[in-house]
Amino acid sequence: MAEEFTEDELTLPPCKYEYLDHTADVQLHAWGDSLKEAFQQCGIAMFGYMTELDSVEIKQSSEIEAIGHDLESLLFHFLDELLFLFSCEPFLICSKVTITEFVTEGEEMRIKCKCYGEEFRIGKHPQGTEVKAITYSAMQIVNIPEKNTFELFVIIDI
Amino acid sequence: MAEEFTEDELTLPPCKYEYLDHTADVQLHAWGDSLKEAFQQCGIAMFGYMTELDSVEIKQSSEIEAIGHDLESLLFHFLDELLFLFSCEPFLICSKVTITEFVTEGEEMRIKCKCYGEEFRIGKHPQGTEVKAITYSAMQIVNIPEKNTFELFVIIDI
Repeated sequence: MAEEFTEDELTLPPCKYEYLDHTADVQLHAWGDSLKEAFQQCGIAMFGYMTELDSVEIKQSSEIEAIGHDLESLLFHFLDELLFLFSCEPFLICSKVTITEFVTEGEEMRIKCKCYGEEFRIGKHPQGTEVKAITYSAMQIVNIPEKNTFELFVIIDI
Repeated sequence: MAEEFTEDELTLPPCKYEYLDHTADVQLHAWGDSLKEAFQQCGIAMFGYMTELDSVEIKQSSEIEAIGHDLESLLFHFLDELLFLFSCEPFLICSKVTITEFVTEGEEMRIKCKCYGEEFRIGKHPQGTEVKAITYSAMQIVNIPEKNTFELFVIIDI
Protein backbone atom coordinates (compact mmCIF):
# COMPACT_ATOMS: atom_id res chain seq x y z
CA MET A 1 0.00 0.00 0.00
CA ALA A 2 1.33 3.37 -0.98
CA GLU A 3 2.13 5.87 1.73
CA GLU A 4 -0.05 8.96 1.87
CA PHE A 5 1.34 12.43 2.39
CA THR A 6 -0.11 15.79 3.34
CA GLU A 7 0.12 18.84 1.10
CA ASP A 8 2.71 20.18 3.43
CA GLU A 9 4.82 17.09 3.20
CA LEU A 10 4.65 17.22 -0.58
CA THR A 11 5.80 20.84 -0.72
CA LEU A 12 9.45 21.21 -1.55
CA PRO A 13 11.61 23.81 0.14
CA PRO A 14 13.40 26.53 -1.86
CA CYS A 15 16.88 25.73 -3.07
CA LYS A 16 19.54 27.12 -0.75
CA TYR A 17 22.59 25.30 -1.88
CA GLU A 18 25.18 25.22 -4.60
CA TYR A 19 28.06 23.05 -5.73
CA LEU A 20 31.59 24.36 -5.60
CA ASP A 21 34.13 22.68 -7.75
CA HIS A 22 36.89 21.49 -5.63
CA THR A 23 39.61 19.39 -7.12
CA ALA A 24 39.42 16.70 -9.69
CA ASP A 25 41.72 14.88 -11.96
CA VAL A 26 41.49 12.15 -14.52
CA GLN A 27 44.06 9.70 -15.72
CA LEU A 28 44.80 9.42 -19.41
CA HIS A 29 45.82 5.97 -20.53
CA ALA A 30 47.16 5.78 -24.06
CA TRP A 31 49.06 3.12 -25.94
CA GLY A 32 50.65 2.37 -29.28
CA ASP A 33 52.92 0.00 -31.17
CA SER A 34 55.70 2.49 -30.69
CA LEU A 35 56.50 5.08 -28.07
CA LYS A 36 55.87 7.73 -30.70
CA GLU A 37 52.40 6.40 -31.43
CA ALA A 38 51.63 6.26 -27.72
CA PHE A 39 52.66 9.92 -27.35
CA GLN A 40 50.42 10.89 -30.26
CA GLN A 41 47.52 8.96 -28.80
CA CYS A 42 48.04 10.62 -25.46
CA GLY A 43 47.86 14.04 -27.06
CA ILE A 44 44.61 13.14 -28.81
CA ALA A 45 43.24 11.69 -25.59
CA MET A 46 43.71 15.06 -23.95
CA PHE A 47 41.86 16.90 -26.74
CA GLY A 48 39.17 14.23 -26.63
CA TYR A 49 38.52 15.15 -23.03
CA MET A 50 37.97 18.78 -23.99
CA THR A 51 35.40 18.16 -26.69
CA GLU A 52 33.78 15.53 -28.88
CA LEU A 53 36.51 14.85 -31.44
CA ASP A 54 33.95 13.84 -34.09
CA SER A 55 32.98 17.50 -34.24
CA VAL A 56 36.49 18.64 -35.10
CA GLU A 57 37.36 19.16 -38.75
CA ILE A 58 40.89 19.44 -40.02
CA LYS A 59 41.04 22.99 -41.29
CA GLN A 60 44.33 24.26 -40.05
CA SER A 61 47.56 23.03 -38.56
CA SER A 62 50.19 24.22 -36.21
CA GLU A 63 53.63 23.03 -35.28
CA ILE A 64 54.90 22.56 -31.77
CA GLU A 65 58.20 21.59 -30.27
CA ALA A 66 58.93 20.10 -26.90
CA ILE A 67 62.10 19.12 -25.13
CA GLY A 68 62.86 17.11 -22.01
CA HIS A 69 65.77 15.68 -20.09
CA ASP A 70 64.02 12.34 -19.75
CA LEU A 71 60.93 10.64 -21.19
CA GLU A 72 58.68 11.85 -18.40
CA SER A 73 59.57 15.50 -18.84
CA LEU A 74 59.36 15.09 -22.61
CA LEU A 75 55.82 13.77 -22.30
CA PHE A 76 54.93 16.51 -19.84
CA HIS A 77 56.18 19.29 -22.09
CA PHE A 78 54.65 17.70 -25.18
CA LEU A 79 51.20 17.67 -23.59
CA ASP A 80 51.77 21.11 -22.13
CA GLU A 81 52.55 22.51 -25.57
CA LEU A 82 49.41 20.92 -26.97
CA LEU A 83 47.38 22.39 -24.15
CA PHE A 84 48.92 25.76 -24.88
CA LEU A 85 47.76 25.55 -28.53
CA PHE A 86 44.25 25.36 -27.20
CA SER A 87 44.55 27.88 -24.39
CA CYS A 88 45.88 30.78 -26.46
CA GLU A 89 45.77 31.90 -30.03
CA PRO A 90 45.07 29.93 -32.28
CA PHE A 91 42.75 28.18 -29.75
CA LEU A 92 43.34 25.05 -31.75
CA ILE A 93 41.51 21.87 -30.91
CA CYS A 94 43.15 18.92 -32.62
CA SER A 95 41.79 15.64 -33.82
CA LYS A 96 45.16 14.51 -35.11
CA VAL A 97 48.74 15.04 -34.07
CA THR A 98 51.64 13.72 -36.11
CA ILE A 99 55.06 13.63 -34.56
CA THR A 100 57.59 14.44 -37.25
CA GLU A 101 60.71 14.29 -35.15
CA PHE A 102 61.09 12.06 -32.11
CA VAL A 103 64.49 11.98 -30.47
CA THR A 104 64.54 10.04 -27.21
CA GLU A 105 68.23 9.39 -26.94
CA GLY A 106 71.04 11.57 -25.75
CA GLU A 107 71.08 14.45 -23.28
CA GLU A 108 68.22 16.40 -24.73
CA MET A 109 65.17 14.54 -25.91
CA ARG A 110 62.95 16.39 -28.31
CA ILE A 111 59.76 16.26 -30.29
CA LYS A 112 58.46 18.16 -33.26
CA CYS A 113 54.83 17.66 -33.98
CA LYS A 114 52.29 18.82 -36.55
CA CYS A 115 48.87 19.36 -35.02
CA TYR A 116 45.73 19.26 -37.15
CA GLY A 117 42.35 20.64 -36.27
CA GLU A 118 40.44 23.86 -36.12
CA GLU A 119 39.74 26.79 -33.91
CA PHE A 120 37.55 25.85 -30.96
CA ARG A 121 34.11 27.36 -31.36
CA ILE A 122 31.32 27.12 -28.83
CA GLY A 123 28.24 25.93 -30.63
CA LYS A 124 30.14 23.77 -33.06
CA HIS A 125 32.27 21.93 -30.50
CA PRO A 126 30.56 20.44 -27.45
CA GLN A 127 32.30 21.69 -24.37
CA GLY A 128 33.93 18.87 -22.53
CA THR A 129 35.97 19.40 -19.44
CA GLU A 130 38.53 22.11 -19.04
CA VAL A 131 42.02 20.72 -18.64
CA LYS A 132 43.77 22.93 -16.12
CA ALA A 133 47.18 21.34 -16.05
CA ILE A 134 49.32 18.35 -16.88
CA THR A 135 50.91 16.69 -13.85
CA TYR A 136 53.85 14.41 -13.16
CA SER A 137 51.78 12.65 -10.52
CA ALA A 138 52.02 8.86 -10.86
CA MET A 139 53.13 9.27 -14.47
CA GLN A 140 54.07 5.97 -16.07
CA ILE A 141 55.75 5.23 -19.37
CA VAL A 142 55.81 1.49 -19.85
CA ASN A 143 57.13 -0.82 -22.54
CA ILE A 144 55.44 -4.22 -22.52
CA PRO A 145 57.67 -6.32 -24.80
CA GLU A 146 55.46 -9.45 -24.80
CA LYS A 147 52.51 -7.40 -26.03
CA ASN A 148 54.78 -5.25 -28.18
CA THR A 149 53.10 -2.10 -26.93
CA PHE A 150 54.02 1.06 -25.18
CA GLU A 151 51.67 2.44 -22.59
CA LEU A 152 51.39 5.87 -21.00
CA PHE A 153 49.54 6.96 -17.89
CA VAL A 154 49.24 10.66 -17.21
CA ILE A 155 47.09 12.39 -14.63
CA ILE A 156 45.68 15.75 -15.70
CA ASP A 157 44.01 18.30 -13.46
CA ILE A 158 40.53 19.18 -14.57
CA MET B 1 43.50 31.43 -47.50
CA ALA B 2 42.56 28.02 -46.15
CA GLU B 3 45.31 25.48 -45.67
CA GLU B 4 45.20 22.42 -47.90
CA PHE B 5 45.80 18.92 -46.64
CA THR B 6 46.55 15.59 -48.25
CA GLU B 7 44.28 12.55 -47.90
CA ASP B 8 46.83 11.11 -45.55
CA GLU B 9 46.85 14.17 -43.36
CA LEU B 10 43.07 14.08 -43.19
CA THR B 11 42.97 10.44 -42.12
CA LEU B 12 42.48 9.99 -38.42
CA PRO B 13 44.33 7.31 -36.47
CA PRO B 14 42.46 4.58 -34.58
CA CYS B 15 41.59 5.29 -30.98
CA LYS B 16 44.10 3.80 -28.60
CA TYR B 17 43.29 5.56 -25.39
CA GLU B 18 40.83 5.61 -22.55
CA TYR B 19 40.02 7.72 -19.52
CA LEU B 20 40.48 6.31 -16.06
CA ASP B 21 38.61 7.97 -13.25
CA HIS B 22 41.03 9.05 -10.68
CA THR B 23 39.94 11.04 -7.70
CA ALA B 24 37.48 13.83 -7.48
CA ASP B 25 35.53 15.66 -4.89
CA VAL B 26 33.05 18.45 -4.81
CA GLN B 27 32.17 20.89 -2.10
CA LEU B 28 28.57 21.26 -1.01
CA HIS B 29 27.67 24.73 0.16
CA ALA B 30 24.28 24.99 1.83
CA TRP B 31 22.65 27.66 3.93
CA GLY B 32 19.53 28.47 5.84
CA ASP B 33 17.92 30.85 8.32
CA SER B 34 18.58 28.30 11.01
CA LEU B 35 21.19 25.63 11.52
CA LYS B 36 18.44 23.05 11.09
CA GLU B 37 17.43 24.47 7.73
CA ALA B 38 21.05 24.53 6.61
CA PHE B 39 21.40 20.85 7.56
CA GLN B 40 18.27 19.98 5.59
CA GLN B 41 19.51 21.93 2.60
CA CYS B 42 22.85 20.18 2.77
CA GLY B 43 21.13 16.80 2.70
CA ILE B 44 19.11 17.79 -0.36
CA ALA B 45 22.22 19.18 -2.01
CA MET B 46 23.81 15.76 -1.74
CA PHE B 47 20.82 14.04 -3.34
CA GLY B 48 20.75 16.73 -6.01
CA TYR B 49 24.24 15.73 -6.99
CA MET B 50 23.16 12.13 -7.51
CA THR B 51 20.25 12.87 -9.79
CA GLU B 52 17.99 15.58 -11.16
CA LEU B 53 15.70 16.27 -8.21
CA ASP B 54 12.86 17.39 -10.50
CA SER B 55 12.51 13.76 -11.49
CA VAL B 56 11.96 12.57 -7.92
CA GLU B 57 8.39 12.13 -6.72
CA ILE B 58 7.45 11.84 -3.10
CA LYS B 59 6.10 8.31 -2.88
CA GLN B 60 7.61 6.96 0.28
CA SER B 61 9.42 8.13 3.35
CA SER B 62 11.98 6.81 5.75
CA GLU B 63 13.26 7.94 9.11
CA ILE B 64 16.87 8.29 10.04
CA GLU B 65 18.70 9.18 13.22
CA ALA B 66 22.17 10.56 13.63
CA ILE B 67 24.25 11.44 16.64
CA GLY B 68 27.46 13.36 17.12
CA HIS B 69 29.69 14.68 19.87
CA ASP B 70 29.96 18.05 18.13
CA LEU B 71 28.31 19.83 15.21
CA GLU B 72 30.83 18.57 12.69
CA SER B 73 30.36 14.94 13.57
CA LEU B 74 26.60 15.45 13.73
CA LEU B 75 26.63 16.81 10.19
CA PHE B 76 28.91 14.03 9.03
CA HIS B 77 26.71 11.29 10.45
CA PHE B 78 23.55 12.98 9.24
CA LEU B 79 24.80 13.02 5.66
CA ASP B 80 26.22 9.54 6.04
CA GLU B 81 22.82 8.22 7.12
CA LEU B 82 21.17 9.90 4.15
CA LEU B 83 23.76 8.40 1.84
CA PHE B 84 23.09 5.01 3.40
CA LEU B 85 19.36 5.32 2.59
CA PHE B 86 20.35 5.53 -1.03
CA SER B 87 23.14 2.96 -1.02
CA CYS B 88 21.12 0.09 0.45
CA GLU B 89 17.50 -0.96 0.67
CA PRO B 90 15.26 1.08 0.20
CA PHE B 91 17.61 2.81 -2.32
CA LEU B 92 15.76 5.97 -1.50
CA ILE B 93 16.50 9.17 -3.36
CA CYS B 94 15.04 12.14 -1.52
CA SER B 95 13.80 15.48 -2.74
CA LYS B 96 12.85 16.57 0.75
CA VAL B 97 14.21 15.97 4.22
CA THR B 98 12.50 17.30 7.32
CA ILE B 99 14.36 17.29 10.59
CA THR B 100 11.87 16.51 13.35
CA GLU B 101 14.29 16.56 16.26
CA PHE B 102 17.40 18.69 16.38
CA VAL B 103 19.35 18.68 19.62
CA THR B 104 22.66 20.53 19.40
CA GLU B 105 23.29 21.12 23.07
CA GLY B 106 24.69 18.84 25.70
CA GLU B 107 27.05 15.91 25.47
CA GLU B 108 25.29 14.06 22.73
CA MET B 109 23.88 15.99 19.83
CA ARG B 110 21.23 14.24 17.81
CA ILE B 111 18.97 14.48 14.82
CA LYS B 112 15.83 12.68 13.79
CA CYS B 113 14.79 13.25 10.25
CA LYS B 114 11.99 12.19 7.94
CA CYS B 115 13.16 11.67 4.38
CA TYR B 116 10.75 11.87 1.46
CA GLY B 117 11.27 10.52 -2.00
CA GLU B 118 11.15 7.33 -3.96
CA GLU B 119 13.23 4.35 -4.91
CA PHE B 120 15.97 5.25 -7.35
CA ARG B 121 15.22 3.80 -10.76
CA ILE B 122 17.50 4.02 -13.76
CA GLY B 123 15.46 5.32 -16.67
CA LYS B 124 13.27 7.49 -14.50
CA HIS B 125 16.06 9.23 -12.62
CA PRO B 126 18.98 10.68 -14.59
CA GLN B 127 22.17 9.31 -13.16
CA GLY B 128 24.21 12.07 -11.65
CA THR B 129 27.47 11.42 -9.93
CA GLU B 130 28.02 8.65 -7.45
CA VAL B 131 28.78 9.98 -4.00
CA LYS B 132 31.39 7.68 -2.53
CA ALA B 133 31.82 9.22 0.89
CA ILE B 134 31.30 12.20 3.12
CA THR B 135 34.49 13.75 4.44
CA TYR B 136 35.52 15.96 7.34
CA SER B 137 38.00 17.67 5.06
CA ALA B 138 37.78 21.47 5.36
CA MET B 139 34.30 21.14 6.82
CA GLN B 140 32.88 24.47 7.95
CA ILE B 141 29.78 25.27 9.95
CA VAL B 142 29.41 29.01 10.12
CA ASN B 143 26.94 31.37 11.70
CA ILE B 144 26.89 34.79 10.09
CA PRO B 145 24.89 36.93 12.53
CA GLU B 146 24.81 40.08 10.39
CA LYS B 147 23.23 38.11 7.54
CA ASN B 148 21.21 36.00 9.96
CA THR B 149 22.21 32.85 8.13
CA PHE B 150 23.96 29.61 8.85
CA GLU B 151 26.27 28.20 6.22
CA LEU B 152 27.72 24.75 5.75
CA PHE B 153 30.61 23.61 3.61
CA VAL B 154 31.17 19.89 3.18
CA ILE B 155 33.46 18.13 0.77
CA ILE B 156 32.20 14.83 -0.57
CA ASP B 157 34.19 12.24 -2.48
CA ILE B 158 32.71 11.43 -5.85
